[in-house]
Amino acid sequence: MDNRAHNFGAGPGCVPDEVLEQIQKELLDYRGSGKSIMEMSHRGKEFTQVIEEAKSDLIKLLKVPEDYDILFLQGGASALFGGIPINLCKDANDNVDFIVTGTWSKTACADSKYFCKANKVVDMESAKFQTVIPPSEWKFSEPAPTYVHYCDNETVHGIEMPTDTYKHFPQGSLVVCDMSSNFLSRPVDVSKFDLIFAGAQKNAGISGITIVIIKKSLLSRTKPSVPTVFNFLKKSQNNSLDNTPPTFNIYVSGLIFKWILNNGGVEAMEKLRIEKSSKLYNYIDQSNGFYNCLIDKEYRSRMNACFRILNGNQELEDKFAKEALQQKITDIKGHRSVGGLRVSLYNAIKVESVDVLISFMDKFMKENKQ
Amino acid sequence: MDNRAHNFGAGPGCVPDEVLEQIQKELLDYRGSGKSIMEMSHRGKEFTQVIEEAKSDLIKLLKVPEDYDILFLQGGASALFGGIPINLCKDANDNVDFIVTGTWSKTACADSKYFCKANKVVDMESAKFQTVIPPSEWKFSEPAPTYVHYCDNETVHGIEMPTDTYKHFPQGSLVVCDMSSNFLSRPVDVSKFDLIFAGAQKNAGISGITIVIIKKSLLSRTKPSVPTVFNFLKKSQNNSLDNTPPTFNIYVSGLIFKWILNNGGVEAMEKLRIEKSSKLYNYIDQSNGFYNCLIDKEYRSRMNACFRILNGNQELEDKFAKEALQQKITDIKGHRSVGGLRVSLYNAIKVESVDVLISFMDKFMKENKQ
Repeated sequence: MDNRAHNFGAGPGCVPDEVLEQIQKELLDYRGSGKSIMEMSHRGKEFTQVIEEAKSDLIKLLKVPEDYDILFLQGGASALFGGIPINLCKDANDNVDFIVTGTWSKTACADSKYFCKANKVVDMESAKFQTVIPPSEWKFSEPAPTYVHYCDNETVHGIEMPTDTYKHFPQGSLVVCDMSSNFLSRPVDVSKFDLIFAGAQKNAGISGITIVIIKKSLLSRTKPSVPTVFNFLKKSQNNSLDNTPPTFNIYVSGLIFKWILNNGGVEAMEKLRIEKSSKLYNYIDQSNGFYNCLIDKEYRSRMNACFRILNGNQELEDKFAKEALQQKITDIKGHRSVGGLRVSLYNAIKVESVDVLISFMDKFMKENKQ
Repeated sequence: MDNRAHNFGAGPGCVPDEVLEQIQKELLDYRGSGKSIMEMSHRGKEFTQVIEEAKSDLIKLLKVPEDYDILFLQGGASALFGGIPINLCKDANDNVDFIVTGTWSKTACADSKYFCKANKVVDMESAKFQTVIPPSEWKFSEPAPTYVHYCDNETVHGIEMPTDTYKHFPQGSLVVCDMSSNFLSRPVDVSKFDLIFAGAQKNAGISGITIVIIKKSLLSRTKPSVPTVFNFLKKSQNNSLDNTPPTFNIYVSGLIFKWILNNGGVEAMEKLRIEKSSKLYNYIDQSNGFYNCLIDKEYRSRMNACFRILNGNQELEDKFAKEALQQKITDIKGHRSVGGLRVSLYNAIKVESVDVLISFMDKFMKENKQ
């Protein structure tokens, strides 16, 4: 691992060293079977153990209550922007309320409009997705919508919601949360949610799997006409094995769940994310405006820190990204729709990598202060 | 690779040794980048090259004409049983004809019934899926259906169709073919098809990707309300990158495409499949009924050879599978819905493995003849 980059990419993000090493070690011969895990039947005893352990480890990590099921789906989290209303709504006349705090909640609202009445009840786009209005000002549909959808962490803009955001939602509405980019980075009280979903490729695996945690009592809402690819009932009844799942990808998620368990669980991940993001934001805030983060402090993401140099000097930002590469600091350009810089601090990012980054930032500032 | 099994599994199937070794070699550091291919942005230069090369290699392998597009989707081939009518049909009143020759065409017909009028115009279930009636007896819907769907190779029952099956279909109907389990095992004239699709986990990769080859002129049929997970138009417009694709899985498919190219292309794969399957079927046919294959010789699959011992002596079949394991011959039990034995002869299976199997079969027969 000598040439290892400090990979601050927003996703597919970095994978813990130990997990990569284990994958490499057992790639040609999975535990004496004479086969790679990639070459195994999804109904064979080895893979059955892989998927069962992955589920039970995830249950341990998040203390998932017994009345919830875990599904491993495909298509990315955004496949579910349509998939969720198709499953949960009676028909396309059902009201669904969206708290729009960035690209992903905005896209979720747009993609679901063929399958429900999609209402933007909060829309922070006019504030450039740099803050969120206080929950006391949120106005929901009346009567209460079938569900309220929000995105726990907006990867593109760097906005993260409090863990108890659901408490501001109307009684009688289901709570649906897209946790793609902060899943398993902090404890959450699963019992307060009806459906949590997350693309795996940030903290929970590699791209190609979407994890769904759903209250079992909701499964009866799925009509037989829901396409199998996101038919929650069918997936649940078949332990996500109604057809061939992405076996290798589930295996990698399972290894990462064990890595988190072995490293203190989501409680330890939360401590780490606070340590790493505090270091970075504090440094930015104390740079006398050379670096500046435009996101409201109350909502700054501890996963994706977005910032600018000299209020958006693109020439310097390009120079920054280019020189960073020479220090093996990679993937720090902001999303193409936003620009600037973005540092993703997923679980696999080490504190030492953040230290290397801050040293580089300091050197760069001294050399380029005007 | 000392402990390598003779893995005759039906899928996820075996992967060529050279491909596994390359994956292992570059797993921690993809070509000097300091990152694993799993950890790379789907919009970065490395992965862009991976997906572009995969597409151009596939075009070379099958001589895909310019008026076709290649899509990398998720959800497995069976996700498209609903996905294809949703894209290609005007509405649920469109007629679609199915040639039902085994489990997969039967399931395709059943899964599509919410999105079209699904007609079983040929249904071989009453013949236990052991043969196919002559094309002269096939009766299609009138007026001609929107498309005719068939499965080129039925993995469960071991029925494979001639490469020119489409020539019996009505004029004016599109030709849709599920090639999941014989894709890239023989040349096909792509220009005769409107849509070819295949789950990758047999000859074209690992589970987690579905490959679609579609005539570009059909893309305009996709309505905006088609969910993004199988919205052919959106996937085509975005080079399958409208959201994060299964990057690692696409990388593996790309390596396999190159392996096939380096080993003589699909023309060489066809020679090999004929050699391997002929050896096995000839041995079975000359065993004086100890082993017997119930499939009509004209339709015997060169990918999945299904057979019985003494017309279905389950005790002996179990003993066979158990003793085979001691010779590192694995995954030869028939599908749970059919029983018996099944030997899958995908591209990565070596002729020597078939020789080992036949030697074992011969020894087993001598020891167990009654």
